Amino acid sequence: MPKSIPDIVIGRLPVYLRSLQHMASENRQVTSSQELGERLGISAAQIRKDLSQFGEFGKQGTGYNIEYLSKQLQEILKVDRVWDVVVVGAGDIGSALANYSGFSERGFRIRMIFDNNPDIIGNQHGSFVVKDSRTIKEELQAANIRIAMISVPSKSAQDVADQLIEAGVQAIMNYAPVVLSVPQGVWVQHIDPSIHLQRMTYYLS
Amino acid sequence: MPKSIPDIVIGRLPVYLRSLQHMASENRQVTSSQELGERLGISAAQIRKDLSQFGEFGKQGTGYNIEYLSKQLQEILKVDRVWDVVVVGAGDIGSALANYSGFSERGFRIRMIFDNNPDIIGNQHGSFVVKDSRTIKEELQAANIRIAMISVPSKSAQDVADQLIEAGVQAIMNYAPVVLSVPQGVWVQHIDPSIHLQRMTYYLS
Repeated sequence: MPKSIPDIVIGRLPVYLRSLQHMASENRQVTSSQELGERLGISAAQIRKDLSQFGEFGKQGTGYNIEYLSKQLQEILKVDRVWDVVVVGAGDIGSALANYSGFSERGFRIRMIFDNNPDIIGNQHGSFVVKDSRTIKEELQAANIRIAMISVPSKSAQDVADQLIEAGVQAIMNYAPVVLSVPQGVWVQHIDPSIHLQRMTYYLS
Repeated sequence: MPKSIPDIVIGRLPVYLRSLQHMASENRQVTSSQELGERLGISAAQIRKDLSQFGEFGKQGTGYNIEYLSKQLQEILKVDRVWDVVVVGAGDIGSALANYSGFSERGFRIRMIFDNNPDIIGNQHGSFVVKDSRTIKEELQAANIRIAMISVPSKSAQDVADQLIEAGVQAIMNYAPVVLSVPQGVWVQHIDPSIHLQRMTYYLS
């Protein structure tokens, strides 16, 4: 496999995978870069170029086998396994994440949820009992957790990120509206619904 | 203003705006495409090219005035005003959205939340009383709503989208894990936390 693929290409692979899985759920067998492109608003040439960085997945004229390409993309993205994920911050967003049904088929399983509020620690949130944030390090190390979601208030987010990284976390999904600083080798995705809204208002008259 | 700017460029403007507003909150006056680029992982040349599509915002060698460029971007993105937004689906995600504190400074205000469950209709969710989904059309038309967020189960999402569009909605943020089909002139952003996680697992060893 090539050594350095641009991150923007990596970012498109989950989108291709989702479309392929959607087609598979409709019992489809074969697709093409043209069809994928039309569904996703990405040019067919771009899709072929992105996929070609990882190997030869389709035959000229016969398109892509949906099941095969899905499996290959899952392997490339390392979601051909199940990753345990923890949530820190048991407010509205944290509870929604802990009970979100969309993770399990996509390679992720919520394992624990933490909070630092004594009134919340010990409460049942869906199928989880909220754990004390002071136990993050021991709990995460014991369970070998690499992925976390932060849904605490902005002022605490950096502090929580530091604790998570010290406990071995390498990938953080951050819902707090603040930019986190992290060392090299740690990945952050900043989730910000306003960004998505602002992208659409441009088109409203 | 030029007629047709690629959507991918439009998609970067809210990201630039967020960074500029963050700098402004630190009482900064001036920035450069280099500094923005380093913060965002986008090349300085790309940023200059994107911005140049909308006008001349900086002077060679002196950089960008943060306040001026922020105001211009807000105007371009039409978030120099406040847009009313409704939420349909008062479960965990819907409640988190209705009470999310990050919208108000970014051009958005949640106005109403709807559900079709008789046990939930009439309940207080934060500062909102949950309205009956059957009243979507009359309520949205009376308040002239153009933007909605859908946080209902997958099987109901298309039906809700159809109702919203009939009521005049032109921009939809969809949290249901399903692809919506909408007529031309309606914009959808699909929010899918698994996509963000899958983009990071690629890098985990």
